Amino acid sequence: MPALDKSLVANLPMFAGMPADDLDEIVREAQSIRYPKGSPVFQQDEEAHSFFVLLHGHLRVMKVTPDGQQVVVRFVTPGDIFGIAMAMNRQTYPASALAIVDSIALVWPSAVWPRLVARHPALAVNTIQTIGSRLQDAHTRVVEISTEQVEKRVAHALLRLARQAGRKSADGVQIDFPISRQDVAEMTGTTLHTVSRILSAWEDRGLVESGRQRITICDPHKLFMLADSPAT
Amino acid sequence: MPALDKSLVANLPMFAGMPADDLDEIVREAQSIRYPKGSPVFQQDEEAHSFFVLLHGHLRVMKVTPDGQQVVVRFVTPGDIFGIAMAMNRQTYPASALAIVDSIALVWPSAVWPRLVARHPALAVNTIQTIGSRLQDAHTRVVEISTEQVEKRVAHALLRLARQAGRKSADGVQIDFPISRQDVAEMTGTTLHTVSRILSAWEDRGLVESGRQRITICDPHKLFMLADSPAT
Repeated sequence: MPALDKSLVANLPMFAGMPADDLDEIVREAQSIRYPKGSPVFQQDEEAHSFFVLLHGHLRVMKVTPDGQQVVVRFVTPGDIFGIAMAMNRQTYPASALAIVDSIALVWPSAVWPRLVARHPALAVNTIQTIGSRLQDAHTRVVEISTEQVEKRVAHALLRLARQAGRKSADGVQIDFPISRQDVAEMTGTTLHTVSRILSAWEDRGLVESGRQRITICDPHKLFMLADSPAT
Repeated sequence: MPALDKSLVANLPMFAGMPADDLDEIVREAQSIRYPKGSPVFQQDEEAHSFFVLLHGHLRVMKVTPDGQQVVVRFVTPGDIFGIAMAMNRQTYPASALAIVDSIALVWPSAVWPRLVARHPALAVNTIQTIGSRLQDAHTRVVEISTEQVEKRVAHALLRLARQAGRKSADGVQIDFPISRQDVAEMTGTTLHTVSRILSAWEDRGLVESGRQRITICDPHKLFMLADSPAT
């Protein structure tokens, strides 16, 4: 197996501002692992043995409640660091991560984290920014679920996905990984039935197109206006 | 004014594992500022000029939506770092902080943050843990608001406050700062009316006692059982 080198990560925001030698040193401690579509990367409550950077593919991160209800925490896209439970002082993963397409990640043993952060301040600074931006997303979701009607929550969720992982297509902006109506329901605190009703109404109005595991935003501007219109 | 010294922060988790000389150096760059009860520490969307460590008192952090609805993000208790918008790569504060009792904070200019973190890896590691634990709290709230009936959400919110800022009293565990039923409503995505109905029913059963700006959990065990009972 050829040695991994810095070319894998040099352009990722997570490693911005780091000298090339440092990057080589960090990447040398990682393994590259393939996760076929449908396979778990880690499970909620499992010992947090590793942390990861996604190189290719997409993952769904979800939490299951004691009585079996599921909530989508976020989707992981290439370049994201994830599974850093140990950096947050946890012994176990707080959620599960599943490959929703064939995916490849760099994998480090959790035990190397304290040394990497102590030796590479830029890594610490970037990690604080990354977790901080996830914290703001999470607070935005709390505010949306607490105060917005469900139609606006669904609009905001789709617009966020389009920003995070949108790909321009002939029909508009397609969310660049398999996503179901059930996923959207689990991101917005509502039911599959309600999401289906909303998306069908939007399709009639030409705002979105959706098929099995696929959502395209045909008119992002109109969806944005709908998401941010005053409460009625 | 006497110079500030490390005795102010030496026992705070945020500064754990740092040499005494480093602490002195960090604290020398701070000012100590008093915030009388009812005064703002910073406002949502204001330029993030400073970051803070609360030494004494309690703050409420809240976000207001464009149409004027308010959500409580969290309560800040002594020892907490807050207002680190700049560390998260933001130019403005994402929420407002208000002193709910007379409070004192150490205040640093945001501009010193990159240098402090680069020179003191323990500060970076502790910050990652702090933001990480807030991220987990936020995800827990998302899961609760998405999946739980309102009575359980209120129970979970009160139990978290008791853990974070509970003081044993003759009657049980009192939440150690002024908190209103409206605050509880804004923490759990429900209305004042619903919170009042739930707390009144719990008072009748001897679970809690609440008065103006005051909540005591008389029977934490029963409240815990109620919060974690299977969905019906």
